[in-house]
Amino acid sequence: MGNKLKVGIVGATGYTGSELVRLQMYHPKVEIAVITSESHAGKQFTEVHPQFRGLVDIELRSLEEFSVYSPDLVFLALPHGVSMDFIQEHGYDKYKVIDLSGDFRLNSQDIYEKWYKREHTSPEDLKEAEFGLPELFRDKIKSASFIANPGCYPTSAILALAPLLKEKLIDPLDIVVDSKSGVTGAGAKPKSSTHFPDVFGDFSAYGLIGHRHTPEIQYVLEEYSEGEVELLFIPHLLPIDRGILTTTYSKPVKPVSDDSLLELYKNLYDDEPFVRLSNIPPSVKNVRGSNFCDIYATYNDRTNRIITVSVIDNLVKGAAGQAIQNMNILMGFEETEGLTALPLSP
Amino acid sequence: MGNKLKVGIVGATGYTGSELVRLQMYHPKVEIAVITSESHAGKQFTEVHPQFRGLVDIELRSLEEFSVYSPDLVFLALPHGVSMDFIQEHGYDKYKVIDLSGDFRLNSQDIYEKWYKREHTSPEDLKEAEFGLPELFRDKIKSASFIANPGCYPTSAILALAPLLKEKLIDPLDIVVDSKSGVTGAGAKPKSSTHFPDVFGDFSAYGLIGHRHTPEIQYVLEEYSEGEVELLFIPHLLPIDRGILTTTYSKPVKPVSDDSLLELYKNLYDDEPFVRLSNIPPSVKNVRGSNFCDIYATYNDRTNRIITVSVIDNLVKGAAGQAIQNMNILMGFEETEGLTALPLSP
Amino acid sequence: MGNKLKVGIVGATGYTGSELVRLQMYHPKVEIAVITSESHAGKQFTEVHPQFRGLVDIELRSLEEFSVYSPDLVFLALPHGVSMDFIQEHGYDKYKVIDLSGDFRLNSQDIYEKWYKREHTSPEDLKEAEFGLPELFRDKIKSASFIANPGCYPTSAILALAPLLKEKLIDPLDIVVDSKSGVTGAGAKPKSSTHFPDVFGDFSAYGLIGHRHTPEIQYVLEEYSEGEVELLFIPHLLPIDRGILTTTYSKPVKPVSDDSLLELYKNLYDDEPFVRLSNIPPSVKNVRGSNFCDIYATYNDRTNRIITVSVIDNLVKGAAGQAIQNMNILMGFEETEGLTALPLSP
Amino acid sequence: MGNKLKVGIVGATGYTGSELVRLQMYHPKVEIAVITSESHAGKQFTEVHPQFRGLVDIELRSLEEFSVYSPDLVFLALPHGVSMDFIQEHGYDKYKVIDLSGDFRLNSQDIYEKWYKREHTSPEDLKEAEFGLPELFRDKIKSASFIANPGCYPTSAILALAPLLKEKLIDPLDIVVDSKSGVTGAGAKPKSSTHFPDVFGDFSAYGLIGHRHTPEIQYVLEEYSEGEVELLFIPHLLPIDRGILTTTYSKPVKPVSDDSLLELYKNLYDDEPFVRLSNIPPSVKNVRGSNFCDIYATYNDRTNRIITVSVIDNLVKGAAGQAIQNMNILMGFEETEGLTALPLSP
Repeated sequence: MGNKLKVGIVGATGYTGSELVRLQMYHPKVEIAVITSESHAGKQFTEVHPQFRGLVDIELRSLEEFSVYSPDLVFLALPHGVSMDFIQEHGYDKYKVIDLSGDFRLNSQDIYEKWYKREHTSPEDLKEAEFGLPELFRDKIKSASFIANPGCYPTSAILALAPLLKEKLIDPLDIVVDSKSGVTGAGAKPKSSTHFPDVFGDFSAYGLIGHRHTPEIQYVLEEYSEGEVELLFIPHLLPIDRGILTTTYSKPVKPVSDDSLLELYKNLYDDEPFVRLSNIPPSVKNVRGSNFCDIYATYNDRTNRIITVSVIDNLVKGAAGQAIQNMNILMGFEETEGLTALPLSP
Repeated sequence: MGNKLKVGIVGATGYTGSELVRLQMYHPKVEIAVITSESHAGKQFTEVHPQFRGLVDIELRSLEEFSVYSPDLVFLALPHGVSMDFIQEHGYDKYKVIDLSGDFRLNSQDIYEKWYKREHTSPEDLKEAEFGLPELFRDKIKSASFIANPGCYPTSAILALAPLLKEKLIDPLDIVVDSKSGVTGAGAKPKSSTHFPDVFGDFSAYGLIGHRHTPEIQYVLEEYSEGEVELLFIPHLLPIDRGILTTTYSKPVKPVSDDSLLELYKNLYDDEPFVRLSNIPPSVKNVRGSNFCDIYATYNDRTNRIITVSVIDNLVKGAAGQAIQNMNILMGFEETEGLTALPLSP
Repeated sequence: MGNKLKVGIVGATGYTGSELVRLQMYHPKVEIAVITSESHAGKQFTEVHPQFRGLVDIELRSLEEFSVYSPDLVFLALPHGVSMDFIQEHGYDKYKVIDLSGDFRLNSQDIYEKWYKREHTSPEDLKEAEFGLPELFRDKIKSASFIANPGCYPTSAILALAPLLKEKLIDPLDIVVDSKSGVTGAGAKPKSSTHFPDVFGDFSAYGLIGHRHTPEIQYVLEEYSEGEVELLFIPHLLPIDRGILTTTYSKPVKPVSDDSLLELYKNLYDDEPFVRLSNIPPSVKNVRGSNFCDIYATYNDRTNRIITVSVIDNLVKGAAGQAIQNMNILMGFEETEGLTALPLSP
Repeated sequence: MGNKLKVGIVGATGYTGSELVRLQMYHPKVEIAVITSESHAGKQFTEVHPQFRGLVDIELRSLEEFSVYSPDLVFLALPHGVSMDFIQEHGYDKYKVIDLSGDFRLNSQDIYEKWYKREHTSPEDLKEAEFGLPELFRDKIKSASFIANPGCYPTSAILALAPLLKEKLIDPLDIVVDSKSGVTGAGAKPKSSTHFPDVFGDFSAYGLIGHRHTPEIQYVLEEYSEGEVELLFIPHLLPIDRGILTTTYSKPVKPVSDDSLLELYKNLYDDEPFVRLSNIPPSVKNVRGSNFCDIYATYNDRTNRIITVSVIDNLVKGAAGQAIQNMNILMGFEETEGLTALPLSP
C-alpha cells in the first residue's frame, strides 16, 4: 500500500466526488489520502454516500486539515467558482491538480467572464491549465501540472466533431449541437428544476440564450482544428439519472460518404481505448457507468448534411472517469488503469 | 357566473393547490375568487404553474388581502402545522373550510402531539372537524362547517379495510398495511430525499419508526367499525410522480371466500361513484389523474389471510379530488359534479 | 341521447383507439355507436383498457358487424397499411372518415411508396384526403368527407415552422428538425425496441436514414408556404410514456428579433384555441393529456439562427385530440367541444 | 490465459446471460470458452448486446457445437423448463453445472409440479442439485457438482428471514413477505406486461394466487431452520430496470429489541462479504450492479412485529453474481474473486 499514489479529493459530497471514489476503487495504483467536505467534515464518507458502506472507511475532513495528508495529486470536485479560490490559495506546485469545475477550461479571462458572468479571481492561471481531453491533447497533458477536466457536454460534442473539423471536411461556421443530458449533470444539490415529481415524465430544452459550454466546445475545437469555429449549442434535460446523447448537424464542403466518414473517424480514434465507433446509432445505456464514448456518423445526401450521434456517461467520461484517465497520463500509468468499470445495461 | 360558488384557495403553490385549480376547471358551479401565496403574491398563478397558461387568469394574493374576496368556501392547501394557525385566526363561521393538511384529522390533542411531535395550537377545533371520507361519513359531512380532508395513504388503506372491519370479519389487532407512494406525496418543495437523480431508478421504505398516517388510519377505522384496531403501517417511496398502491394483510376470523369478499365490498361500495371494485389487482396508472379508488380483495387459504390491493391518485382521491367531493356534499351539489377528469393511461 | 352524433371507432385496442374513447367521454354531442377489434371481438372494451372500468360499457365488435351500427362518422385507428384496405372496401360516402394512420397523409403515390416502401392499394383516394391540421387548413377541412389526420411528429414540427415559412422569413432549404418522442408513439404492440428494461433510463436516436414523417412535414409545409422546402428530420426515443418535444433550427433571410418573432406567431395563432405561445421554453408535461401545442421561438444572433421548441402530447394533439378537433370542424360543432381535458402536471 | 477456467454459458441472449458475461470480465481466473444461443447462433455476441462492443469478441454457437469447446464449468441461463431438458441430455459429470433457472430449486417433484404447473422431465436430478445460497449452504456447495442457483425474490427474502427463523425468534407460521421487483426480473422477451408505455409510471401487484417463488422461499427456510415454515409471498412490479426490495413482517415469540436484532444478524452475517447490515432502511440503488444484499431489521413494539427490509440487484446477487459466487466456491477460488463491480449510484 505504501507505494501507491496518494490522492486527495476536495469536495467529495457531490456526484463527481462520489464517482471519483467509485472509480478509484477499481484502480490498483492509487489510494485516497484525504477527502474533504466543508458541510460534512467529521462524518464518515459513507454517511453521505451509503452505497459505499463496507467498501470505503474514511472520514471527511475540512479543507483546513487537508495539507496534513500531503497528497501526490489532487482532484477538485468543487462547484464552479470555488475551484479558482482553491488554486489562488494553494496553487499546483506541491501536487498535480485536476480540476473538474469549469473554472479553468477557457484560456481567456474575457471569454470566461462574458459567458460565466462572474469575475475570474485567478486569471493568471487560466493559461497554465491544460484542457484534459486525452484523445486530442494527450501530449500536452503528459507534461502538465494542472489539468482543466472537460465539461460533460463538451466531451460528447468535441469528440464527435473533431475529426470533421480537423480534416476541414465541414463548414466550421455552420454547426448545430443538440444535446440531451441526464439530471446528474445538474449536480447533487436539490433545486426546483431537479425536483423528482416535476422532472419525472418531463422533457425540456434550456440554456437557449447561451449555455456556458458553448465557448468551451467552440474554442477547444478552434484550437484543435486551427481555424475559426462557430456553433449553436442547445442542451435539453433528459428525465434519467446518467447519460448524455449529443446529435450534431453540419455541412460537408467536400464529397463524403458513410464509408469515408468511418475511415476518417477510424484514423483518429482506432487506437483510442475509450472511443468506440458504432455502425448503429448508440444509446446512453450502452455506456452507463463506463468511460466509453460511442460515436456514430452518417451522411444524409438529400440534405447534404453530416449527422453525428455520440453518447457518454456524464459522470464518467464526462467527469470523474476522464479525470482518472488524465491522472493516469500525468503519472505515467497505463491510460486504462483502473478504468475497468463496464457498461451497466440493462 | 354571478351565482357560482366562490371558493378561496389558501396556499396555491404546492401540488394540492394546483390540483384544486385543475379540478375546479371541470366544475360548472364553482369559480375561484382568490388564491393566496405568501411567497409568490403579486405573480400570476400561471407563472408558478405554467401548465395552466391560457387557462387560468388570476393573480396570487397575500393572506392579508384574502378576506376582501369574501369566498363562500375555503380550501386550505397549507403545510402541516400552518393550517391550525389559519383556523385559530379565521375560524370557519364566515365560510365553510376544507383543510387538506393533517392538522385536524385526529380528534385527540394527545394523539396528535404524540405522532406529529409538535404542539397543537388550536386543540378546541380538533373535535369540530369532520373527517372528510364521504364513503364512510357522508351523513356527518353534509352538515359540517369544517372538514379535515383525509391523508393520501389513509384514504387508500381505510377504504380497503373498512368493509372487513365493519363486518368484524378480520382480527382488528393483526393488520399489516404496506403502502407505496409516488413522490408528489412528499410535496412540491425540493429536498434531498426528492432529488431526481437519487430517486430515479430507486425504491426504499421509510417512516418505519412510526409514520403519522398510522394513527389516522387506525382511529378512523376504530370509529367506523366501533371497535379497537391496531395496525402496522409501512410506507415506501415509488419512483413515479403520482399514485399510491396499498397492500393490506389481515386474518379472517370467520369463513370467507373470494366470492363472499366481493359481496361484502359490493354491499358497501356498489353505489359509490368513485370506488371501483376490481376482479384483477389494480394498477396506479388506471386511476392517474382521476378521483377513483380501485380495490381488489382476495383470500389466500393456504395462509388464511385476506389480501387487499387498492390504488388512488394521491393528489386526487388522496387530496384535491376528495376535497372537491367534500365540497359537493357540503354545498348540496351532485357529488360527482366536476370530478369528471378521466384516468390518463398510458 | 338519440340526437347525438354516432361515431364508430375501427381498431380500438391501440393507444389512439383508447384515447379516442377517453376524449369522446368529455364530448357532450357524441356517442360511440361501435368499436371494432379483430383480435378482441366479443370482449368488453374495458377488458382491454381496464382504466375505463365503470365508465365505458361497450362490447368490441368485429369489422363484419360494423355496418349494422350505421355510424355518422368513423375514426380509423388502424396500423399503417390497413386503413387503405378499409377505404378501398368501404369508402367515405356513407359516413365521414377520419383516418389516424399514415396511409393518406401524402398526396402522391410515388412519394408514399418511396418513403413507406410498400405499394399503395388505394392511390385514387390519396388526393381526396384532406390533411387535418386545423390551424393551417381549417377551411378545406370544413367541406371534406375524408380526413388524413396528421402524424404526431409532423404536428409538432409543422406548427412550429409554418409561420416562418409562410412569411418567407427563413431559408426553406436549410432546416433541421430534431424531435424527441415518448414511447407511446411506437404503438401498443410489444417489441424489442419498446421493452421496458431496455428503454428505461436509456435514450437514443433512430430513423436516421429517413423517417417516414420527413416527407409529411416537408410537403405539407410546401403546400402551406407555396414554395419548395427541404429539411432534415431526426427523431429520438424519450424514456417517457407521452409527449413530443421538437427543436428546429433554421436561418433567417431577413432581419429578425425575439419580439418580431413573437409578433409573427401571434398573427397566425392568437385566435387558435389549442396553440399556446410561450415566452419560456415549454416542457412536455405542461401539455400532458391535453390538446395543446405550446410553441417557443427565439433568435440567436451570434449564429444567426432561429430556434423553435414545440411540445404536444403525441396521443392527443398528435393523434386522437386532433381527430376530435377535425370531427368538430366537419360536423359544425364548436371546435373546442369536448377537448376539455386539462394538462396533467405534475 | 491457458490455465484459466473455461466456462460455457448456455443461452446467452437473456439478461442473466449478458450479466454473466459482464461479471466474468472482472474475473481474473475465468475465460469464456463458448456461449450458445439457438436464435442467434452465428452472430457476434455484441450484435445482441451492443454495450459490450469492443470488449467481448465471441461468436454465438448453437447447442450442437457446444461440447467441442469442452468447458470446465457450465452456466445454464435458460428459460424455466428448458434447463431440465439440458440436464436430462447432458448431465453434470463432464463439467460442473450451475443452473440459473427455477428447474432444480425445489427438491420435491410433487411440489415442483404443483407450483410450476408442468411435468418435471428430470425428477431424479432434483435431489442432486444443491441450493446455491452460499451464506446458508456454503459447505454443501463446496462439494457439489450441480448447483441450483436461487431465484431473485427468494435470495432477498431468505437472507432477511434466515437469522430470525434459525434462532426460533419468530412464529414460523405467521410471516408476510411483500416484495417489489424491477422489470428485468420478467426477462428479456418483450410482452404486454413489460411494454414500456404501460409500465412507465405504473405500479401493480401480481401473482397473488400463488407465485412460484413461494415454495422456494418456504422450503429453503424450512431446511435451514429445521422446522415448519408457512409464509405469504406477494410480489409487485416496480417501474425500474434493476433491483428488488423485500419487506417482511413477522411476530417475535421471545423478547427482542433493535439492538438484539442487530446482534443476531451480525452473528450470522458479519463475515459475509456480500451481506451488509444497515442501520437505516436500504434502497435498491445502493446495490445496483453489485453483488451486495443490504439488510435492515427493526422491532415495532406497538404492534409486536419485526420488520425487515432487504435489497439486492436481481440480476447480480439475485442471479448472475450469485452464480459467479457459487462458481468461486465450487472451484476453490476466493469467494469474492471477480465480484468487484461496485454499486452504481446515482
